[in-house]
Amino acid sequence: MSNRNFQIRLGRMNTSLRIGLFLLVSIVISAGVAFPDPLPSWNEGQTKQSIIKFVQAVTDKSSPNYVPPELRIATFDNDGTLWCEQPMYFQGFFAFDRVKALAPQHPEWKEKQPFKAILENDMKALAAAGEKGMAEIIMTTHAGMTTGEFEKIAKNWLATAKHPRFERPFTDLVYQPMLELLGYLRKNGFKTYIVSGGGVEFMRPWAEKVYGIPPEQVVGSSVKLKLEMRDGKPVLMRLPEIDFIDDGPGKPVGIQKFIGRRPIAAFGNSDGDHQMLQWTAAGEGPRFTLLVHHTDTEREWAYDRQSSIGRLDKALDEAQNRGWTVVDMKKDWKKIFPF
Amino acid sequence: MSNRNFQIRLGRMNTSLRIGLFLLVSIVISAGVAFPDPLPSWNEGQTKQSIIKFVQAVTDKSSPNYVPPELRIATFDNDGTLWCEQPMYFQGFFAFDRVKALAPQHPEWKEKQPFKAILENDMKALAAAGEKGMAEIIMTTHAGMTTGEFEKIAKNWLATAKHPRFERPFTDLVYQPMLELLGYLRKNGFKTYIVSGGGVEFMRPWAEKVYGIPPEQVVGSSVKLKLEMRDGKPVLMRLPEIDFIDDGPGKPVGIQKFIGRRPIAAFGNSDGDHQMLQWTAAGEGPRFTLLVHHTDTEREWAYDRQSSIGRLDKALDEAQNRGWTVVDMKKDWKKIFPF
Repeated sequence: MSNRNFQIRLGRMNTSLRIGLFLLVSIVISAGVAFPDPLPSWNEGQTKQSIIKFVQAVTDKSSPNYVPPELRIATFDNDGTLWCEQPMYFQGFFAFDRVKALAPQHPEWKEKQPFKAILENDMKALAAAGEKGMAEIIMTTHAGMTTGEFEKIAKNWLATAKHPRFERPFTDLVYQPMLELLGYLRKNGFKTYIVSGGGVEFMRPWAEKVYGIPPEQVVGSSVKLKLEMRDGKPVLMRLPEIDFIDDGPGKPVGIQKFIGRRPIAAFGNSDGDHQMLQWTAAGEGPRFTLLVHHTDTEREWAYDRQSSIGRLDKALDEAQNRGWTVVDMKKDWKKIFPF
Repeated sequence: MSNRNFQIRLGRMNTSLRIGLFLLVSIVISAGVAFPDPLPSWNEGQTKQSIIKFVQAVTDKSSPNYVPPELRIATFDNDGTLWCEQPMYFQGFFAFDRVKALAPQHPEWKEKQPFKAILENDMKALAAAGEKGMAEIIMTTHAGMTTGEFEKIAKNWLATAKHPRFERPFTDLVYQPMLELLGYLRKNGFKTYIVSGGGVEFMRPWAEKVYGIPPEQVVGSSVKLKLEMRDGKPVLMRLPEIDFIDDGPGKPVGIQKFIGRRPIAAFGNSDGDHQMLQWTAAGEGPRFTLLVHHTDTEREWAYDRQSSIGRLDKALDEAQNRGWTVVDMKKDWKKIFPF
């Protein structure tokens, strides 16, 4: 409908209709939000309002809290913040499945811990192998191939593996409210990053499709890489040696190394994100820091201070002391998963 | 002038004028390029045409060589490719000036090499100190402060220091044709990155202003960082320990670590860029690899196979064998600097 036609039609309307239209327009304007609701899976309340208020302030050129687009950096933890992390980190399932897939080439694993424990699903023996055992598993399953080969392995696994509780692909177990939040921030000029303790090359193959986050905006833990020539072509070999652990105090380091600017907003769910939120909050100007608190046994899981996976203890205390936003998953989220 | 007015005026023109206008329009259309020239400081010829042809192919949706925007990654070396590197890497001038600035706090340097050599401008003694001496200078001048403090130091130096030959700020000594190339690529949907052997935190403070490249798109060498609390606030300390050397075989590693995608175009000038260009060229689909050959003693410098700074030897052979584009600075560049 052209402007002119619209004016003609408006002129023909009866008075009560015109008053009604005027009121409707007034309500829309005074509500100050654009329709449709950018966060439909978030229940109305303080948590949702704190997000919207922050985004409105930093994008409003007349606000003292305005932040130019190039400085609108937002960092997100992955495990427990964007997708589930129970009953263990999903990359752990990947590593165990890799051990099983590689076992025929390693007959000695039948008698060798920690591999024996995985092949026999003996979680007690696996726990006894401790951190050293886990490191051995990670190195065996994540190194000794080219970056291209590892990408294919990770993609194939994600295409076929299923979560034991939900019996769905792991990439289905992402939080719908967080997907909406990522989109809402990007629509408002934010650059969204993953800053996760998980392996960077494990996340990059699917982060763009699932979260809309391109490979160059994924920061994570890594093994060392080495350039080699293979049949006259350069390849990058993944070495069985840790290069960087992007967790806890490593997260601000990862942010500085890979992004080089301090985020103005950071989102996490565990003590592994504590320093990232502190680092973000300590910058000048408006800041937004949010923790996802897992409180929903029925639809997801409930865990915090006592959990061995995704423990949320010190960061929860600091959130309460400093007034950081805490999502009560049960109360604040209308919907958990996209399915 | 509205469309309608234009038609009326066209109707009033005499026939020869109308034929002339028609011919002019035909020429513009058949030339197939949008005015104005996107690379005005590049002389017409094969080098300029190879760039334009590549950009047109990867951005033309009907071309078999079309590349979607998210894969249009272009990486640029810095020293000798975007700005000068003679008579030594500019970061070397920075380090030497830092030694001089810090000398009053270190009276022992008067008798201690390699510092003594710098304080006495004794280049022979400095050369004798070798790589170990250089490493000591770098660590002394680039570590032991917070990331924020180092940023200020680097910015202050760049604001005041001058190049010995041109007597201008170092950030003036950037190549005008390369600035145009960066802009041309970005205008065509490319994401432009610096991938340099130089220190990442030395480049980030000015790369956005000078090159239009934001901090998160600067990849470089780095020292290890450590999170510490200072007066209750988190800071990142720069440790006197190398974290990553982004040079030679380190460049494809840096690209994978920090970008996570293979570039489709790479630009360098020395053997330190050789592997970056090989890595770029070895990908599938259309590729563009370019070397800047310093051939202009008058306006800049001429050096290649024998130079200790920015040696171009093996990469030049490979460029000739594989048909990589080589810029002959003297011949191909109408103008060297923006001033």
